[in-house]
Amino acid sequence: MAAAAPPLKDELDIVIPTIRNLDFLEMWRPFFEPYHLIIVQDGDPSKTIKVPEGFDYELYNRNDINRILGPKASCISFKDSACRCFGYMVSKKKYIFTIDDDCFVAKDPSGKQINALEQHIKNLLSPSTPLFFNTLYDPFREGSDFVRGYPFSLREGVPTAVSHGLWLNIPDYDAPTQLVKPLERNTKYVDAVLTIPKGTLFPMCGMNLAFDRDLIGPAMYFGLMGDGQPIGRYDDMWAGWCTKVICDHLGLGVKTGLPYIWHSKASNPFVNLRKEYNGIFWQEEIIPFFQAATLSKDSTTVQKCYIELAKQVKEKLGKVDPYFVKLADAMETWIQAWDELNPTSKAAK
Amino acid sequence: MAAAAPPLKDELDIVIPTIRNLDFLEMWRPFFEPYHLIIVQDGDPSKTIKVPEGFDYELYNRNDINRILGPKASCISFKDSACRCFGYMVSKKKYIFTIDDDCFVAKDPSGKQINALEQHIKNLLSPSTPLFFNTLYDPFREGSDFVRGYPFSLREGVPTAVSHGLWLNIPDYDAPTQLVKPLERNTKYVDAVLTIPKGTLFPMCGMNLAFDRDLIGPAMYFGLMGDGQPIGRYDDMWAGWCTKVICDHLGLGVKTGLPYIWHSKASNPFVNLRKEYNGIFWQEEIIPFFQAATLSKDSTTVQKCYIELAKQVKEKLGKVDPYFVKLADAMETWIQAWDELNPTSKAAK
Repeated sequence: MAAAAPPLKDELDIVIPTIRNLDFLEMWRPFFEPYHLIIVQDGDPSKTIKVPEGFDYELYNRNDINRILGPKASCISFKDSACRCFGYMVSKKKYIFTIDDDCFVAKDPSGKQINALEQHIKNLLSPSTPLFFNTLYDPFREGSDFVRGYPFSLREGVPTAVSHGLWLNIPDYDAPTQLVKPLERNTKYVDAVLTIPKGTLFPMCGMNLAFDRDLIGPAMYFGLMGDGQPIGRYDDMWAGWCTKVICDHLGLGVKTGLPYIWHSKASNPFVNLRKEYNGIFWQEEIIPFFQAATLSKDSTTVQKCYIELAKQVKEKLGKVDPYFVKLADAMETWIQAWDELNPTSKAAK
Repeated sequence: MAAAAPPLKDELDIVIPTIRNLDFLEMWRPFFEPYHLIIVQDGDPSKTIKVPEGFDYELYNRNDINRILGPKASCISFKDSACRCFGYMVSKKKYIFTIDDDCFVAKDPSGKQINALEQHIKNLLSPSTPLFFNTLYDPFREGSDFVRGYPFSLREGVPTAVSHGLWLNIPDYDAPTQLVKPLERNTKYVDAVLTIPKGTLFPMCGMNLAFDRDLIGPAMYFGLMGDGQPIGRYDDMWAGWCTKVICDHLGLGVKTGLPYIWHSKASNPFVNLRKEYNGIFWQEEIIPFFQAATLSKDSTTVQKCYIELAKQVKEKLGKVDPYFVKLADAMETWIQAWDELNPTSKAAK
């Protein structure tokens, strides 16, 4: 039973993609100040991003990305928060927490500020249960357990690779839903964490997300989005689909639910519709593709799984649009770049 | 979006298995009195069960079951709450709500009494989403919707066949967990309903359960338990596994979560251990069996699915223990009895 979560101060980086001064960190100060931040500056690299005093951080702009990755920098998106995955690559820590700069500290129903990071750590340090559903949600939370009829052989669970947190206030809706329900706010605090079952895909949002970099890092590629690409706002979705298929294959778990953050402002639905437009059609083919995707027994590491998946993307989704051929190439480039920057991880696997 | 649930007064029966006077109904009076009750009296048929005044009910004891079903009464368990499924069979309504007689009205966090039946009706009248996970839980609840990345083609959902409610206070634990955690109480009110994804099994508890009899009734057989059988307390589990496999095959949905009832007293863990003992071993083979079970395209009705499943039980689980051969026969008898008592349903299918 995971009660208090160890803070993991030397084992976790916080990755923040941004185009502006990071004033939002003031509210997070009591929770984030002990940690190292990796800031990935999107857009104009000549602009200066102000970070509040007292935070320990490194900041990469587009010039840095180009310098560090050389030609392989082509796999990192520009003018899209997908650029955040560069931060995952340069981190040397076991855990990553990534958060958007319009996300603030939420309160639980008792009015207490929620330490989102602590809950993510609890989620990641306790096993997942993807092979059978537990009706009382995460059996590893305090005050809960496996219910009657849960097979004892499955109660060890599997290592948790991903912790997907949720959002109060502005929900993560697509442009059509934003347009139709401009006033909808998420006010429901659901006090639950649960494992997404094996074989089930989910829409992974990058706004409030943590993962075990050692277990799944190389699958957390946020794709080719934004500048020069025919699609945006599917970066985290793409990473989620790939990650879930690979977690299922490797016997790793994905949890969703707590912690909540307070999502402060809705992005412009008209701008979003333009970005999402192709994705709305393409996801109808992408999701059946991922639902049917299987990986071979030889794919025993995340990197091997990811390369195998890239080949399938090229072969099967390439027919949907030439974009997917380019994306599949970028997926391979990403793995090459990851292995260059993380030689031990490659050797270890 | 399902807001207020129509009461469905002429379309729903409440089925209660019991061995004692139904004093517990007093607390449920405001919620249950408008409905018809089907009471299935277990144990000694000469005992008189007192039902509080004002309730509209029919009561069946063992003599009634034997008289109505003749030799086919062998498929109805004795001295086990599994006998409740007789009530499903004799009902003529579209919906069934079944509840244990040690379950009382729970309160939500605001202190308001929970109308469990109303929430079950909401669950059953709104679609399920088994084909893709929605991170904001049931998208058909007020204030919620499908999140970004949820394929639009899947947003119609599928008809909901089962609504599985939960329990505050005494959780539904097996005997080993009861023995190890005698003091554990469920105090967590999780304000969520969710669809159990396609391909995922779950431990269905019969304590607080509703279903659409027209859609899934014949699969709600609670097996051979109790008197003369080598197992008890797996009645609802058995029904849940069969039901889920058939729902997945027929494109029907199963929801779990709200509503909560207040489960007043833990059953004796020593007695439970004796009942569950064989099941603890058997479930290790039963669950992989159901996880791998597939039904043929010809099985287009619940009855056909169930008969096909019974054959597979006999063939594959018969090797585990001769009990399963007997159970498979009882599954067939159950369908014969169901069709005899529900000739229209058979013809309609």
